Amino acid sequence: MIRGVHHINFLVRDLDEAVDRYQRLLGVRIDRRDALPGRGVRMARFLAGETWIVLVQPVADGVPMRHLQKHGEGFFLISYGVDDIAEAVSSLRAAGGYTTSDEARTGLDGWRVIDIAADELNGTVVQLCQDDTGRDRP
Amino acid sequence: MIRGVHHINFLVRDLDEAVDRYQRLLGVRIDRRDALPGRGVRMARFLAGETWIVLVQPVADGVPMRHLQKHGEGFFLISYGVDDIAEAVSSLRAAGGYTTSDEARTGLDGWRVIDIAADELNGTVVQLCQDDTGRDRP
Repeated sequence: MIRGVHHINFLVRDLDEAVDRYQRLLGVRIDRRDALPGRGVRMARFLAGETWIVLVQPVADGVPMRHLQKHGEGFFLISYGVDDIAEAVSSLRAAGGYTTSDEARTGLDGWRVIDIAADELNGTVVQLCQDDTGRDRP
Repeated sequence: MIRGVHHINFLVRDLDEAVDRYQRLLGVRIDRRDALPGRGVRMARFLAGETWIVLVQPVADGVPMRHLQKHGEGFFLISYGVDDIAEAVSSLRAAGGYTTSDEARTGLDGWRVIDIAADELNGTVVQLCQDDTGRDRP
């Protein structure tokens, strides 16, 4: 059911400062900026192989902001790519797993995403993602 | 300098229980088991696309055990693949970054790995990894 690691989100307090650090220390080029007002975040991202590394700065109340306040900067979630998110969610539920919302929501670039509760997979927020853009993959 | 996400380590308290959950909920097959006595851990892993997802159970004192005790289960580190770890470390240091050890250590399958201090990259333990096995990649 899983194709690969589609993206990983890391929470940061200051996006510009984080982008500078990543570019300087890891030699990556980060030229993609986005915002998801519905989640109260702005983001910057780069591709590491087939995976988007997304730096996320919460700017308004929401799940990311509350996670940052509780846990501080660092890992937020890992999103596994699936071909068909409806089918993947059905399989998950049939296996006794549960998601934090009934329906998938829309992420960057129209990605369809849904989160599995953190207590389901040993403390890690795991997300499933269907990416139909066909773009931006190496 | 970065080729992709080589592996991601998640700390768990009970490896067998975590393997069961991952297999059941995500439909993955986990048939690779390893141990690194020098790090005080045993592991199980599966490939998600080009990335190894490694479940790590600390069984003796060491950095992973202390991380688990302090932070609980969940994300431990992300390891970016590089072609030449000596060159990557040189670039990192030239850019003002620092590693938690002077030299790279040997991980699974002879991978050469070295960690960048967590406070360098916004709360995330970032590792660099040179994998010369040429094996086990899709």
